[in-house]
Amino acid sequence: MTKERLVCGVDVGGTTIKFGLFTPQGELRRRWRIPTDTSHQGRNILPQIARSIRSQLPLSQLLGVGMGVPGPVQRDGTVNRCVNLGWGVVPAANILSHLLDGVPVQVANDANAAALGECWQGAGQGADSLLLVTLGTGVGSGLVLGGTVLSGAHGSAGEIGHMTVAPQEKRVCACGKRGCLEQYASASGILRMARERGLSARDAREVSTLAAAGVRPACDVMKKAGHLLGLALSNAACLMDMERILLGGGVAAAGEVLLNPTRESFQANVFHASAGTELAFAALGNDAGLYGAARLALGDQSATTSR
Amino acid sequence: MTKERLVCGVDVGGTTIKFGLFTPQGELRRRWRIPTDTSHQGRNILPQIARSIRSQLPLSQLLGVGMGVPGPVQRDGTVNRCVNLGWGVVPAANILSHLLDGVPVQVANDANAAALGECWQGAGQGADSLLLVTLGTGVGSGLVLGGTVLSGAHGSAGEIGHMTVAPQEKRVCACGKRGCLEQYASASGILRMARERGLSARDAREVSTLAAAGVRPACDVMKKAGHLLGLALSNAACLMDMERILLGGGVAAAGEVLLNPTRESFQANVFHASAGTELAFAALGNDAGLYGAARLALGDQSATTSR
Repeated sequence: MTKERLVCGVDVGGTTIKFGLFTPQGELRRRWRIPTDTSHQGRNILPQIARSIRSQLPLSQLLGVGMGVPGPVQRDGTVNRCVNLGWGVVPAANILSHLLDGVPVQVANDANAAALGECWQGAGQGADSLLLVTLGTGVGSGLVLGGTVLSGAHGSAGEIGHMTVAPQEKRVCACGKRGCLEQYASASGILRMARERGLSARDAREVSTLAAAGVRPACDVMKKAGHLLGLALSNAACLMDMERILLGGGVAAAGEVLLNPTRESFQANVFHASAGTELAFAALGNDAGLYGAARLALGDQSATTSR
Repeated sequence: MTKERLVCGVDVGGTTIKFGLFTPQGELRRRWRIPTDTSHQGRNILPQIARSIRSQLPLSQLLGVGMGVPGPVQRDGTVNRCVNLGWGVVPAANILSHLLDGVPVQVANDANAAALGECWQGAGQGADSLLLVTLGTGVGSGLVLGGTVLSGAHGSAGEIGHMTVAPQEKRVCACGKRGCLEQYASASGILRMARERGLSARDAREVSTLAAAGVRPACDVMKKAGHLLGLALSNAACLMDMERILLGGGVAAAGEVLLNPTRESFQANVFHASAGTELAFAALGNDAGLYGAARLALGDQSATTSR
């Protein structure tokens, strides 16, 4: 009996590494996770990953490995600084492939991998071009065009969180600039705006709950976040005219109190020809990156969907 | 003796149709132009083009035809409204190919074609990703990613002129929105801003000449245009992280008085990872669209450069 051949998706985070074994058709067969060993500038991470994969299946059964990492990735699979992992410039694809006796390895930025995952098995299915915006502690995004992830000339495409949406802002963003989308549409941005308005919320989730209940300052905060998000998305659509835009991440759980003002601002600011761009929520949650990493391992075949 | 095989580039404008016969290596062998017959909702235009090409060479010598048009184009070569030509929905590629006995025809938006032209034989050579911004009566742009023009889900990618850069603007743009880049960085925008500051300039060129001579209100106008252009370009780079950005069109002839504030604003607003994005002037002038149209006819081979 021949064993079914599988691809392995690896989603590398600063605290946990998630693994998933998938069929080429996108069925998840098995998943597991291990804590990330960030000691020694993260030099144990790739050997950790190789050992963990070897412990789960014989390499002969493995079609390939795809890996998402929290940092910019060049086209050849070289990672260019991952602060969370302690990495400087690391030719991650080459090293991991070597540790796995030559099994092909593809590497991408985790936000880009997540967009690919939504295209493959989530809310992006059937879309030829997709922008997935992840609204979490920060704001990131990934772009898939014609089934391919856009990584950018310096590996940093999709930094929508650092588009300038409020040029008059005085506060400085974590990136050093001012008026970045992330200062308003991230969990930390929403909490900051709420506290400035005298709300004693513990976190962004509480702000959105209060907004859903109609508490005025909380509504104002969610409106402002949605308004600036819609502005950034409309500017993105003017330039790229993508078919679909998905919102994911913890902040997206706010639902309509965020989506309504976002839609309104998007429609007010988008060029008329792109007014038909679909705006919806992502479907895979925290698993988008894992699915996308597995999809990376399948290479260019079968484009964006599993059909 | 076998005749050299050639591609034909066609740049269709509202008043003139330009033709160029090129070798597959990008050498221009012959060029000519005819006036555009926009009567009868432009229904004579494609037959005009076919006749004109047939009058110049036997079809057996023609490898293919590429055509740039001033409107959105779908992936199958269907044009979706060209106001300047009087066209509604016109399957231009199919019709022209039919009129040329089946010679392959590719069609693209003219701004996208111009970007491809600069990639092929102009200031974009060697760049894997390029944004060409054309600053004329309006502001348009074309995007080339990995040798392929990005046309967008609704055929309207590259509408950088309608990115919102000044959300507080009260005046309405020709597109119906407010605060579009085109309201400041186009020839008409520059002239308007100059007149509002009491300058009696005839056109944008005169404003830039006065700015180069150090006349204060003219300098302020060019600074504002460059500042908002740099902001739009930095937002584009946050999202797409392109390798190179080129400025073309009549307004770009202003030179340093425009480029300096544009650069300054770009560097102040761009995400640090994309700070190395090159910002320069286009090289092919009004011929970029003609070169790009010819390049379209060559299809996906040989990617962005002629090497």
